[in-house]
Amino acid sequence: MTEYPMIPPEEALCIVLEHTSVLGTERVGLRESLGRVLAEEVVALEDMPPFPASAKDGFAVIAADRSVWRQIIGEQMAGPAISVVVQPGTAVRIMTGAPLPPGADAVAMVEHTEEAEGRVRLLRPVKPGQDVRPAGQDLAAGERMLAVGTPLGPPEIGLLATVGCTRVQVYRRPRVAVLTTGDELVELDQPLEPGLIRNSNRYALWAAASCAGADVIWAGHARDEEGELRRLMIEALEVAGVLLTSGGVSMGQRDLVKPLLEELGIVHFGQVAQKPGKPLTFATVGEKPVFGLPGFPVSSLVCFELYVRPALCKMQGHTRLQRPRVEVVLVHPITLTGTGHHQPDRTEFQRAVVTEREGVYWAETTGLQVSGRLRSLVGANGLLVLPAGRAHFDRGDVVTAILLDRSEVEGGNERMR
Amino acid sequence: MTEYPMIPPEEALCIVLEHTSVLGTERVGLRESLGRVLAEEVVALEDMPPFPASAKDGFAVIAADRSVWRQIIGEQMAGPAISVVVQPGTAVRIMTGAPLPPGADAVAMVEHTEEAEGRVRLLRPVKPGQDVRPAGQDLAAGERMLAVGTPLGPPEIGLLATVGCTRVQVYRRPRVAVLTTGDELVELDQPLEPGLIRNSNRYALWAAASCAGADVIWAGHARDEEGELRRLMIEALEVAGVLLTSGGVSMGQRDLVKPLLEELGIVHFGQVAQKPGKPLTFATVGEKPVFGLPGFPVSSLVCFELYVRPALCKMQGHTRLQRPRVEVVLVHPITLTGTGHHQPDRTEFQRAVVTEREGVYWAETTGLQVSGRLRSLVGANGLLVLPAGRAHFDRGDVVTAILLDRSEVEGGNERMR
Repeated sequence: MTEYPMIPPEEALCIVLEHTSVLGTERVGLRESLGRVLAEEVVALEDMPPFPASAKDGFAVIAADRSVWRQIIGEQMAGPAISVVVQPGTAVRIMTGAPLPPGADAVAMVEHTEEAEGRVRLLRPVKPGQDVRPAGQDLAAGERMLAVGTPLGPPEIGLLATVGCTRVQVYRRPRVAVLTTGDELVELDQPLEPGLIRNSNRYALWAAASCAGADVIWAGHARDEEGELRRLMIEALEVAGVLLTSGGVSMGQRDLVKPLLEELGIVHFGQVAQKPGKPLTFATVGEKPVFGLPGFPVSSLVCFELYVRPALCKMQGHTRLQRPRVEVVLVHPITLTGTGHHQPDRTEFQRAVVTEREGVYWAETTGLQVSGRLRSLVGANGLLVLPAGRAHFDRGDVVTAILLDRSEVEGGNERMR
Repeated sequence: MTEYPMIPPEEALCIVLEHTSVLGTERVGLRESLGRVLAEEVVALEDMPPFPASAKDGFAVIAADRSVWRQIIGEQMAGPAISVVVQPGTAVRIMTGAPLPPGADAVAMVEHTEEAEGRVRLLRPVKPGQDVRPAGQDLAAGERMLAVGTPLGPPEIGLLATVGCTRVQVYRRPRVAVLTTGDELVELDQPLEPGLIRNSNRYALWAAASCAGADVIWAGHARDEEGELRRLMIEALEVAGVLLTSGGVSMGQRDLVKPLLEELGIVHFGQVAQKPGKPLTFATVGEKPVFGLPGFPVSSLVCFELYVRPALCKMQGHTRLQRPRVEVVLVHPITLTGTGHHQPDRTEFQRAVVTEREGVYWAETTGLQVSGRLRSLVGANGLLVLPAGRAHFDRGDVVTAILLDRSEVEGGNERMR
């Protein structure tokens, strides 16, 4: 069996992203585009607002007009433009958002006017343009409105609607196949015989890939049997653009994933200097990325977070591929166990709760950090990055933390019922 | 028309949350529970792991056994337990994750052993329990696994699968009706006559409420006509639990929303001391919250963010209702315009891009901050909170910013293609 060198996590991520390409694009309806990334530049075809509009309730007037009393010759609500022209000595009652009538060049807000017998008097002079939103204030015709690569959230959806875009060109979403392996796993509705555990990775990886914007399909569960695993892998790669396997990547005799990936494609790495997730394997079959994730639930989710999620983000056209990292202060000491009597030779990613108080981030780990203990991820909003070569961290030491998705960082005064 | 006092934003939020109740619960399939909030305490019915398991590839032995060479009496893979008992003088070859055979109390990792002629010798002594994950290490039978109020993400979904939960009790999602108003609005596929603009709020509010976890329905568009608006409001409240209207809440003669809400229910406030969003109106009709959002696109989205989103989060059982707030340093001066010659009397929420560099958050506003300019929200990842009473902020001044959803805060070294 091939011996793979153990490479640093940063190098592993670079290799993954090098072998991951931005997907093609598709045209979707405006609603479907929510959460997607724009794949075309959107240029305004018309001014926005399309006409000079009043910013206040009041009177549309000519600023230079020195008349003391002006005849009110009409009323312009927000809505279709009425047919009237403002001339010296006249004014039009106008509402916020309504189009400024021709002739007028300013709005006197109603609070600064006095009305009597169908006429109005300004209590303060107005300047040309006062309380008028000029046409094109938000956007001038021909101006670039949204750039390629813009993630589409509520304001962007609103802006696209404003200019009448009903269909939008966006990057495609990757289709991800999840294939679990291992004789020890049973499905949720099957009885637990001695030695067996339930297949939780199927659901956890489905959830993680869904949250990352992928369209996830279940490619089945392979027993530790080469023929079955090969068949399921080939089938999965026929229908999906990305394959995630879980389990079968250690160096045991029944760890079949690495040899099969060597047979079907190119294995780019087979060991990463990290804990959890050392046996993580990354390959391409044709152009398709394949992640051989470790079987332990925590290892597979941490590897997903560090490598699969950035790849899926890249495929969807995102330019921000990584989570934010912040410096955190440890609220308790951490002692790592190395190999035998040596210092740890791998970066350890410990699950933690990060809290912000008075501008400082504090971190507390989520208890026992063994790879099988999924509970160490429950409620965690950060991953501490504890670099190789150091076995002990004191209370008060500053380390880097990756803030996870759920990480609206807990803050002292932000809880409210 | 009733005159409503202008209340501070903090008071407005308290009133909204006071009149918003957590919804009932429902039982859903495991997959459907992703992103929902747990409404039952989940207790482990069995130990997890369910059996003592090996943490390494190696040999299951009795730690106290002083035999030099041990007979290899079997091989235990991860999977069903084989029928063998370890006795002094014997060992069982074992793989990571495999159940520890009866009799054995420790695992010697393969790297610290020597094999010859069907026998194995330990190169280092082992302690009882060494490299064994005891049954119940992650979770003991009867232990509380997930508390009421836990948001369900990938690790929680994995944990629920681990213990065989195929259906989960979660809080219901609110059904939100969006009703737009105003004679000046046309639908996207209609021609833009002079004085008219497109109905963007329909889409922006749909997107915002969807992102907040609601099930959104379109309740139609009402012209500025009392009968039509009343009919659409009543219809919407028959099918939805929350009503959002946009437009028609200023004090103009055709601003019909406030009077109609007074007729149909109780108006709790009708003006908030903030910019944008001063005319925001909040009412309840029966038990159902109704938000009369201003018509300007920015005003309606900012009000959604500040008041509607927390209410929708509360309804779904979330305990964290507000976005994180951080202190930011202004990279440019900001001058606010007050009423006439007075200082600003409202809290101003300016849209900004917040960037983190070396542990400090920097904020830059997104250009012209007028309420109609939806572009001021595009790409914004923060809302600056500029308190009333102060008209000028210098470059370098520290103010509070609300970090928005999209706010994976831009960081210098975090962009990567």
